[in-house]
Amino acid sequence: MAAENVPSKQARIDRIKATIRTCPDFPKPGIPFKDLMPILHNPDVFSDTIALLEEHVRETGTKVDVVAGLEARGFLFGPPLALRLNCAFVPIRKAGKLPGETVKCSYVLEYGQDTMEIQQSSVKPNQNVVIVDDLIATGGTMAGACRLVETMQANVVGCLAVVELDYLKGRDNLKYAVHSLIHY
Amino acid sequence: MAAENVPSKQARIDRIKATIRTCPDFPKPGIPFKDLMPILHNPDVFSDTIALLEEHVRETGTKVDVVAGLEARGFLFGPPLALRLNCAFVPIRKAGKLPGETVKCSYVLEYGQDTMEIQQSSVKPNQNVVIVDDLIATGGTMAGACRLVETMQANVVGCLAVVELDYLKGRDNLKYAVHSLIHY
Repeated sequence: MAAENVPSKQARIDRIKATIRTCPDFPKPGIPFKDLMPILHNPDVFSDTIALLEEHVRETGTKVDVVAGLEARGFLFGPPLALRLNCAFVPIRKAGKLPGETVKCSYVLEYGQDTMEIQQSSVKPNQNVVIVDDLIATGGTMAGACRLVETMQANVVGCLAVVELDYLKGRDNLKYAVHSLIHY
Repeated sequence: MAAENVPSKQARIDRIKATIRTCPDFPKPGIPFKDLMPILHNPDVFSDTIALLEEHVRETGTKVDVVAGLEARGFLFGPPLALRLNCAFVPIRKAGKLPGETVKCSYVLEYGQDTMEIQQSSVKPNQNVVIVDDLIATGGTMAGACRLVETMQANVVGCLAVVELDYLKGRDNLKYAVHSLIHY
């Protein structure tokens, strides 16, 4: 394909954003939920999404050993990204779902808290880890994932998301480089 | 790469099987849990896994419109497969997690039952759907997913899994073509 026929980065981002649906009052009144599932309904848009995440990682120039993805929607974007980066994918799950030795971490939700978990053997000390989720809101889940990676003495080299709700200032809770494709 | 250097299908399956870890007594005593996560730790093995699923679908000669994946571990394998098949990925989730109009279905677990859900708009009548999960045990979850697809008047053209526990006879509960890469 001639270079002039490749859509620009902004055009690809705009097309992804156009597929995202805002669902008012989900899961409770007053919350305008961003439904990213339509991205996955269109393989071209989904492929662009993964490609843009990959391009960002490559542009940072940092070698990535592990893509860690957050249950459950981070599982939709993390594995295709890891395949493109030719690196490992490691899941971070709700507590009690991963067998073997694990490392746990509590994190703050809008109301109350929850516990997330990673397999001890899945990330080695000094490995470079990119953490992926679908969406960054308050940043609580992503911050918990960063602490898990720190506990394993590995390096968080980036926090990636498809969407970031800038008005919730989640990035202020994260001490690592954050990159999101789409901002609200 | 010369054709003679491409590992045989059986060699690729054997390599995937060799990475799977059996964890005794997880999540409860007496259950030998198959941990498929090491597959994702090795991008070559993970890529082979997706490629073998893709090859199977292509060999059936059936056009696939949608890959439906079951929360949560089906989310790890379904999206990369959908990207390779250049078709939609549609998630089937635990009840209450998908916004908009949904179709629900109860399914039987080892003890008790649960409810799964799919977005109404995500699959159209007469579309051909392949359902993907990590593992088929008793087949209860996969059977529930088949009923969801039927409710949407779409066609189940295959039930795919990476692993099948043959001794639980899960495929006896499924009235569609079942294909699993690895059998125990």
